[in-house]
Amino acid sequence: MSSRRPLQARRLIAEYLGTLLLVTAVVGSGITAVNLSPNDVGLQLLENSVATMLALAVLILTLGPVSGAHFNPVVTLADWWLHRHDPDTIGVTEVAGYVGTQVLGAISGAVLANLMFGLPAVSWATTTRTTPHLWIGETVATGGLILLIFALVRTHRTRYAPAAVGAYIGAAYWFTSSTSFANPAVTIGRAFTDTFAGISPPSVPGFIAFQLVGAAVGLALVLVLYPRQTTVTGDTAPTEPAATQRVPARSRS
Amino acid sequence: MSSRRPLQARRLIAEYLGTLLLVTAVVGSGITAVNLSPNDVGLQLLENSVATMLALAVLILTLGPVSGAHFNPVVTLADWWLHRHDPDTIGVTEVAGYVGTQVLGAISGAVLANLMFGLPAVSWATTTRTTPHLWIGETVATGGLILLIFALVRTHRTRYAPAAVGAYIGAAYWFTSSTSFANPAVTIGRAFTDTFAGISPPSVPGFIAFQLVGAAVGLALVLVLYPRQTTVTGDTAPTEPAATQRVPARSRS
Amino acid sequence: MSSRRPLQARRLIAEYLGTLLLVTAVVGSGITAVNLSPNDVGLQLLENSVATMLALAVLILTLGPVSGAHFNPVVTLADWWLHRHDPDTIGVTEVAGYVGTQVLGAISGAVLANLMFGLPAVSWATTTRTTPHLWIGETVATGGLILLIFALVRTHRTRYAPAAVGAYIGAAYWFTSSTSFANPAVTIGRAFTDTFAGISPPSVPGFIAFQLVGAAVGLALVLVLYPRQTTVTGDTAPTEPAATQRVPARSRS
Amino acid sequence: MSSRRPLQARRLIAEYLGTLLLVTAVVGSGITAVNLSPNDVGLQLLENSVATMLALAVLILTLGPVSGAHFNPVVTLADWWLHRHDPDTIGVTEVAGYVGTQVLGAISGAVLANLMFGLPAVSWATTTRTTPHLWIGETVATGGLILLIFALVRTHRTRYAPAAVGAYIGAAYWFTSSTSFANPAVTIGRAFTDTFAGISPPSVPGFIAFQLVGAAVGLALVLVLYPRQTTVTGDTAPTEPAATQRVPARSRS
Repeated sequence: MSSRRPLQARRLIAEYLGTLLLVTAVVGSGITAVNLSPNDVGLQLLENSVATMLALAVLILTLGPVSGAHFNPVVTLADWWLHRHDPDTIGVTEVAGYVGTQVLGAISGAVLANLMFGLPAVSWATTTRTTPHLWIGETVATGGLILLIFALVRTHRTRYAPAAVGAYIGAAYWFTSSTSFANPAVTIGRAFTDTFAGISPPSVPGFIAFQLVGAAVGLALVLVLYPRQTTVTGDTAPTEPAATQRVPARSRS
Repeated sequence: MSSRRPLQARRLIAEYLGTLLLVTAVVGSGITAVNLSPNDVGLQLLENSVATMLALAVLILTLGPVSGAHFNPVVTLADWWLHRHDPDTIGVTEVAGYVGTQVLGAISGAVLANLMFGLPAVSWATTTRTTPHLWIGETVATGGLILLIFALVRTHRTRYAPAAVGAYIGAAYWFTSSTSFANPAVTIGRAFTDTFAGISPPSVPGFIAFQLVGAAVGLALVLVLYPRQTTVTGDTAPTEPAATQRVPARSRS
Repeated sequence: MSSRRPLQARRLIAEYLGTLLLVTAVVGSGITAVNLSPNDVGLQLLENSVATMLALAVLILTLGPVSGAHFNPVVTLADWWLHRHDPDTIGVTEVAGYVGTQVLGAISGAVLANLMFGLPAVSWATTTRTTPHLWIGETVATGGLILLIFALVRTHRTRYAPAAVGAYIGAAYWFTSSTSFANPAVTIGRAFTDTFAGISPPSVPGFIAFQLVGAAVGLALVLVLYPRQTTVTGDTAPTEPAATQRVPARSRS
Repeated sequence: MSSRRPLQARRLIAEYLGTLLLVTAVVGSGITAVNLSPNDVGLQLLENSVATMLALAVLILTLGPVSGAHFNPVVTLADWWLHRHDPDTIGVTEVAGYVGTQVLGAISGAVLANLMFGLPAVSWATTTRTTPHLWIGETVATGGLILLIFALVRTHRTRYAPAAVGAYIGAAYWFTSSTSFANPAVTIGRAFTDTFAGISPPSVPGFIAFQLVGAAVGLALVLVLYPRQTTVTGDTAPTEPAATQRVPARSRS
């Protein structure tokens, strides 16, 4: 990241732009998928999930050095909570700025996708997503996301975050029952488009509530599995830990 | 990995959680695939294999520093056997703990997937997988997995394990006749769900038996191809070895 | 890259060959996709986008050390403009050489693809792409591409460019309404083949115009988000920047 | 790679096993694809190409340190020719051993795939592949493969070879008219199975002839673009070379 702390303004612009483009990617690829593969919803989801995975990885890589590339209120909240006793890190004011910016970016992203595909700027989503088992899905999806991100942070391996977070979401689209929104800002943004990726406004609060529950579960797992910052060599898995301690320094990456 | 040896408890929690989420990913993505792509079993397997590959890679990356991210009894057994004369590594007790934990995690993962998709917590699988040529498939699948993992361990390149093990399983789903279970714990877990990824209880022993045969074959190949720990530079392939020995140190990664 | 500056001739050959093979990959994979998946245009685009993404990544990796692997006039122009006050970098003459070579390479690539599939060497494309909302798509696609590339350049992370640029295009095929040409040379080349990837000659100027608009937008974002060259550690995202400053040197990659 | 030169025997075993498993992956995934996706040949090729790409990458990563992971006579021949004046590298005898072993491995791989799927051990392929434009395809496919591999070798970046060669073949399946065999040993092996990946024996010589032509073209491009060994920093693309020379050493990977 920058050798000097980036200005607050640049960081908010990065969070706005990143969340905007993430939602544009999610919504836009969903529109294309439905238009071009009308006969198989699974194929539509495959097209949508692959495009989302790749776009998310690229956005984190592109904007991470500026803002940390949260693009997600639960990531910002978890980051604040884990480092709340560290004077160098973000405080409540910055958290509010990040979260507000992310929500505005997400809404803008849905609008951009609508316009880019010749649809009205805003069309409220009509897809109802309120079945309780979907909430289990959001809990699992968000818990896993928080565990992944802060496992990388606590082991100084966030260089893997772009590919890993993208891959995680690409998989979670499929293995969770809710197609893994796992992001309150994106959930709100997706209410502004009545397309494949949409979620009806009345379904939004339930999703956000269980995303927060999932984030809490994820944080608990982080504290149990990674109670403190540790340094990881290039060699970590799958072999039992002791073996990897014998890696000569020069083979570390 | 951790600069101090992680506590035993954390390691067992990591193995439990990792095997649980791996089975949730395998079973859950299979359920979604069948629900959304009802007309093409190949497309279902493509969706299932891509999601499994990505989830497995992320789980190894996330939990490797804690437990080594085995999630698989044959990996644990092979690891113990290869290092059995090394006092620093896992002993028989730890092996028993790992294996038991992996099996419990796998069963829990199937239950979680069932619940997340609104199905009964447990429904015994009815998919019979007992044709002898499937056993050749499990032998090949498991042998290749063990060779890959310990080739990386013996060349101090386990930093590549998350992506490589994920990619291997993603391919083996297709090139083996058995869709590559290659994991006794996951095989047991998959008996608890009567969905795309299920295997009927009577088919389980045969799969596990040939997974053990495959592991033995894989270990034999490891001993032949990598008789001892070696250090590999960033430059390894494809050119004949002598050439790569001329890599200046500063270009190594 | 080469420890001595490559000769101009080699650099132009690399730009010619790279742009040629990029268009061959785009056009050729499109022909195969339509031939083999006649019943689902989305599946055709999935096949075309995955092949393009992989080929582009490999071409940048292969030829980057020689010419920088621009393969795209807007990348060359943006690179010249950003470094216009730096005597070490390319000047107007080199820019003209690069751009002309890229256009010739793109046309040659379409011809090679046509011949390789037993079609006439040249068949003018008849696919009209002139709807205004497609122009928004090209603006978004090109702006994102320029931001990605120069965010990596300004943070000394172009080692990620092959995978990242490939992934970006693979996603942009889906989330933009125009399937993301984002390259004036490739757009011209694609007018020479009346196949899946073709664009009718009358549609070309509009696409190029908005690609230039997108490039300007992307450059503006680069200047706002990365006002100067900075050095990024391996650890960049997603966590707030301050945290990543505490990475011990030995864990950097 | 090994800190001491591996024994000849181990290297031949690695070439045999690697070529065997590569053909097993190509043929086996093709059989599964046809069985499970009977209605769309493009989907079959997508499944086959993704599985092949992943398996090839994993095999190069696994066996590269032992033998260099050629698995391909044209790679072995090109490697010998480029280093023919270097006493440290392979000589004519080793070339003969490698090539013979690769052919035996490829045949064994087809037999294993046949048996694993319950088919007769050998069934001569009946798929005729003799159209001249397919030969253009093999020329392009093999030329690109040789250029990629030795561009990495000459820039000391073969650490990228596993992913890059896999990605290249995954793309070339689609953008070449011949589905990119690009390997004489694999071409011979694929004559032993009358399945999706098969090639009729009479079609084999033409493919091999143009693979050799392609290899010569590829070598010529290597000599033009990379006349000598050079060292590449982590930063190579896409920006013009001079810029990347300003990378501070500590940001290199």
